Amino acid sequence: MTSSTNMRLRLPLLCIILEVILIILFGTLVEYNDDTHAMLWNENRTDSATRNDHENEFYYRYPSFQDVHVMIFVGFGFLMTFLQRYGFSSVGFNFLIAAFSLQWATLMQGFFHGLHHGKIHVGVTSMINADFCTGSVLISFGAVLGKTSPVQLLVMAIFEVTLFAVNEFILLSILGINDAGGSMTIHTFGAYFGLMVTRVLYRPNLDKSKHRNSSVYHSDLFAMIGTIYLWMFWPSFNSAITNYGDPQHRTAMNTYYSLAACTLATFAFSALVNPEGKLDMVHIQNAALAGGVAVGTAGEMMLTAFGAMIVGFLAGTISVLGYKYLTPVLESKLKIQDTCGIHNLHGMPGVLGAVVGAVTAALASPDVYGHGLQRVFADVETGKWNPQSRGGFQAISLAVTLGMALFGGLITGFILKLPIYGAPPDTHCFEDGLYWEVPGEEEGHQELYEVATSNEVEKLSS
Amino acid sequence: MTSSTNMRLRLPLLCIILEVILIILFGTLVEYNDDTHAMLWNENRTDSATRNDHENEFYYRYPSFQDVHVMIFVGFGFLMTFLQRYGFSSVGFNFLIAAFSLQWATLMQGFFHGLHHGKIHVGVTSMINADFCTGSVLISFGAVLGKTSPVQLLVMAIFEVTLFAVNEFILLSILGINDAGGSMTIHTFGAYFGLMVTRVLYRPNLDKSKHRNSSVYHSDLFAMIGTIYLWMFWPSFNSAITNYGDPQHRTAMNTYYSLAACTLATFAFSALVNPEGKLDMVHIQNAALAGGVAVGTAGEMMLTAFGAMIVGFLAGTISVLGYKYLTPVLESKLKIQDTCGIHNLHGMPGVLGAVVGAVTAALASPDVYGHGLQRVFADVETGKWNPQSRGGFQAISLAVTLGMALFGGLITGFILKLPIYGAPPDTHCFEDGLYWEVPGEEEGHQELYEVATSNEVEKLSS
Amino acid sequence: MTSSTNMRLRLPLLCIILEVILIILFGTLVEYNDDTHAMLWNENRTDSATRNDHENEFYYRYPSFQDVHVMIFVGFGFLMTFLQRYGFSSVGFNFLIAAFSLQWATLMQGFFHGLHHGKIHVGVTSMINADFCTGSVLISFGAVLGKTSPVQLLVMAIFEVTLFAVNEFILLSILGINDAGGSMTIHTFGAYFGLMVTRVLYRPNLDKSKHRNSSVYHSDLFAMIGTIYLWMFWPSFNSAITNYGDPQHRTAMNTYYSLAACTLATFAFSALVNPEGKLDMVHIQNAALAGGVAVGTAGEMMLTAFGAMIVGFLAGTISVLGYKYLTPVLESKLKIQDTCGIHNLHGMPGVLGAVVGAVTAALASPDVYGHGLQRVFADVETGKWNPQSRGGFQAISLAVTLGMALFGGLITGFILKLPIYGAPPDTHCFEDGLYWEVPGEEEGHQELYEVATSNEVEKLSS
Repeated sequence: MTSSTNMRLRLPLLCIILEVILIILFGTLVEYNDDTHAMLWNENRTDSATRNDHENEFYYRYPSFQDVHVMIFVGFGFLMTFLQRYGFSSVGFNFLIAAFSLQWATLMQGFFHGLHHGKIHVGVTSMINADFCTGSVLISFGAVLGKTSPVQLLVMAIFEVTLFAVNEFILLSILGINDAGGSMTIHTFGAYFGLMVTRVLYRPNLDKSKHRNSSVYHSDLFAMIGTIYLWMFWPSFNSAITNYGDPQHRTAMNTYYSLAACTLATFAFSALVNPEGKLDMVHIQNAALAGGVAVGTAGEMMLTAFGAMIVGFLAGTISVLGYKYLTPVLESKLKIQDTCGIHNLHGMPGVLGAVVGAVTAALASPDVYGHGLQRVFADVETGKWNPQSRGGFQAISLAVTLGMALFGGLITGFILKLPIYGAPPDTHCFEDGLYWEVPGEEEGHQELYEVATSNEVEKLSS
Repeated sequence: MTSSTNMRLRLPLLCIILEVILIILFGTLVEYNDDTHAMLWNENRTDSATRNDHENEFYYRYPSFQDVHVMIFVGFGFLMTFLQRYGFSSVGFNFLIAAFSLQWATLMQGFFHGLHHGKIHVGVTSMINADFCTGSVLISFGAVLGKTSPVQLLVMAIFEVTLFAVNEFILLSILGINDAGGSMTIHTFGAYFGLMVTRVLYRPNLDKSKHRNSSVYHSDLFAMIGTIYLWMFWPSFNSAITNYGDPQHRTAMNTYYSLAACTLATFAFSALVNPEGKLDMVHIQNAALAGGVAVGTAGEMMLTAFGAMIVGFLAGTISVLGYKYLTPVLESKLKIQDTCGIHNLHGMPGVLGAVVGAVTAALASPDVYGHGLQRVFADVETGKWNPQSRGGFQAISLAVTLGMALFGGLITGFILKLPIYGAPPDTHCFEDGLYWEVPGEEEGHQELYEVATSNEVEKLSS
Repeated sequence: MTSSTNMRLRLPLLCIILEVILIILFGTLVEYNDDTHAMLWNENRTDSATRNDHENEFYYRYPSFQDVHVMIFVGFGFLMTFLQRYGFSSVGFNFLIAAFSLQWATLMQGFFHGLHHGKIHVGVTSMINADFCTGSVLISFGAVLGKTSPVQLLVMAIFEVTLFAVNEFILLSILGINDAGGSMTIHTFGAYFGLMVTRVLYRPNLDKSKHRNSSVYHSDLFAMIGTIYLWMFWPSFNSAITNYGDPQHRTAMNTYYSLAACTLATFAFSALVNPEGKLDMVHIQNAALAGGVAVGTAGEMMLTAFGAMIVGFLAGTISVLGYKYLTPVLESKLKIQDTCGIHNLHGMPGVLGAVVGAVTAALASPDVYGHGLQRVFADVETGKWNPQSRGGFQAISLAVTLGMALFGGLITGFILKLPIYGAPPDTHCFEDGLYWEVPGEEEGHQELYEVATSNEVEKLSS
């Protein structure tokens, strides 16, 4: 049997080659940083301790890292299990591309963000940054969910991680802007990259699989596991790499309030746009998270709980309205088939977050921040700080990010269009059976299912 | 179609009005506290750091906060998914009322627990306290689960949060008692408030929905997600707002051992009360948690692991026996329809916890606590400390809490009885389809289900 | 009805007796340690603080403890829910034996690892160690899953915990070796102990239950919850009891990279060994974790991310190959019925981890570790340190562990063979209905199921 979607050689080959390359590059380029290296951390500690262990960045950042890690693997993974026959792929491919991306991101980000005598230094902060970059890839995954092979997804990750690192470098190192929670670097970038990829991969006959492009009762509950974990840990996400002390504390709290307000907006508008006033799981699962996205840039600033709640409320509102009114138009007019509606969860709220960040940065002043100003805005110490120009740079960064994402997605989309990756046929999208050994639903049904599937696969491969 | 349960206007209106009020009140009343404010935290830090960032309360409390947050949203949310057709509402309404309550609680608790020049100061400790108050509302939700509309639940939350803050103020600020894990303030209050509400909302014809008032195989597994998360993170819950150092450490450990002993009691008595010796998921899902409730007051004291295990064992025992023998009597004799059996999980174990707390406080002495005495009992520093009177105040607090809860629940129940909230009819309790767009169970079954449901809804709305 | 599997007396009696014994022993033997005791922690603190609260071990270890706790109760519990009709038992019995084992382990480990004036001192480190020991029992549970009664499992836990503590004492206290993440003490020991138990309990007619010894679609998704939590928190597991500072930081990071590389190997070989190139959930759920096991010993050493990735890649590879080619042989030739394939996830990767640890220890030198050497290898301070002999002791420890595990499993297996524990008959293995009140799958099906089950049970009990 030589099915066009058979992964027997393609997937193992790609995985093994990638991992071997990663291992070689790690062997030649990666070193422990000062806080993870046995010699460097204990350098000045002869008999009396000159450095206290609790000052190791591990204790400031590791709890946040683990929360982010849960968001990447459980949050994104289960959020996408809402499809009735695509749970294995949602959690499984999420797992695969995240495991690859975090390694590749360590190298790419390390390369762009500053080598130390030709070496990349790693520690818990680089682990968080690698997970962040991975999050961007998983956002794009949401747009093409159900319509791509695992090989395509890995190839997409190779390019997206690379471009993510370039864009992040331009924003953070060249333009020197703030984006601790990644409204731009992670969400806007990941969303518009993914939307462009799915645009290029447009399938005119996707309605042949539309009976599988929906949820069942239990799959919606699995998806809620993802939603709730993303929602709960978003305060850790936005605050994970801010400065120690008040910025980290403040960011977590701003995000907490933004999300709470966003949730009320989501329920309100979900009921309002439904003729019978019924709530839609798609909205609850997704739009309730938009509040976290929208304070990703301004969260570390003196936004106040009040400001955060306004932003969160707006984000939830535009997200629900996007799902209801914009997504169908994007599909019918612009031929953008966005399986998870990432434009509504990450795209628009990401842009909103960038704008809010620009405004909040432009309004910053020593009267409000006191000596804390330089701990939020890095260029205060250099004496070159100017709030209006800071706000301007924040806005420019949004434009750069959109440009990089759309251009990168375009190129990557065409690369993924090559007929060599074993993509699913239009008749078998949103179907685990193509790439997974799938058991039946229940004892009695199993036999029937297997007969049905094997018939389908036979047809497909002949 | 003008169904009496249609939420199209009621729910959006209520959500939007509430959120707008919240935003206005936050804008006028809420400020960053010393540890989240850029200026205040960095006040004395000119060029040399006079305050170390690791002393920011964030690093002492944030990991506990996140554990509590998981309990509130995943723990409570999934614990209630055991019903076969009420999973969306269990997780979803839990999400909605928690997101509202934590905002409202920030204001109410901030108002009662001390304004700073007319302002409410917020930080990670206020976030934990807001989540705690939310927990109390979710406990009450368990009593009325399946029989209330989301609008009713929000209205209940408005009143319950307010009264919770009043009761908490009386106990902690006026009576000056200890209740770090909330045996009284959270569990006893939430349970008896909810029981009184469900008593007032008594439905004589609820058996018309009894075929849905039970679990199916998978729904019980989803519920176990809730149970296990509550169980694991309860040590963080009880210790989250205790004093730094030994009290926080000791509380977590006492809770750990109490829960372990409780679990063995639960399995033992669950098998014992079943004629065939079979375990009952209702007991395992709920009674195994009673050990956490029962050390909510004494956990921070020198209870010892030994004491904690005895308390946990007792709590598990009375909880299982309550489910088996008391719940049916409460329903048939007292007309209390307690969907989740909160009387067994939070009510009786909460009272037990209050009593254990009173006794342990009365037995406290400097011989055992040394200089640590004043870090557990706040009035030691004032010189007015007297263990017997402390024990007495603890006992008085239980009576106050019971009174506040029952009276508050009574009033709230009558308010919720008004026929304006779109409550479900007796024939459609425990049914997601009333308030949610519900997909079918499986491809084949979906069509059938939709026909059946639409027939039911037509009958209902005509 | 007097079914041979009726637990009505056996299980309650055993649970209550065990818990009473535990409570008595805790009452006579267990004390708060210096960091949890109100007097001891505040000893030198009269008016000015001489000890800072952030130095309490709680703040260094508690976040790791909670992650480990999640692995034990959610990770192991849900990993085993893959069976179609054994979800209640998987999560439930996991819960029961873990709750017992952590109490028993506190006593056994406390007894062997050093009494303080005849008392066992407890705190967060002892809680982590107790959870670790519990993990070992749960690994063994995986081998006998579906074929044992809860009473058998508790009896197994009594013996296994005891032997675990003896073995751990020999390795850590007598031989003085390193094994922070327990490649030997936890994984190798738990795996070979469990394999020997299941060998002794060999059931020649187990194929009478083989229709239940497989997954269904949803049960595989529940199992993925377990997998992902184990995977995410493994860095916390391996680093939980290492020294503060660089060792803890480094261990977490090494584990992170090992697991990422392992995941790519798992996907690669899972597709490669399948004729149609389809991925197998059994591999993804289990083999992807082998990378965490395999760096359990060397993780705290200067293994480097490079080294960790090689080890992880190897571990994933041998684990998948083990599932595909070795497990069937073990069952047919050696009569080892290993339900979860613990030999592939914990056995072989544990041995690999021991070997990697021995080699890495033998290669250690002050040139690489600097002053950090003595913080990894305890005997450096005594002046007796010698890397080659350290490596040798590490290798000897593996042999000791294998011997203890196989011998202990043999004895325990024969004890569990006694016909007094209510073990399931060959026709009813992998079936929740024997020990649990089980609801139906769906409203319509429930009735049918109950009729079918009651027929089966009648046949069984007659």
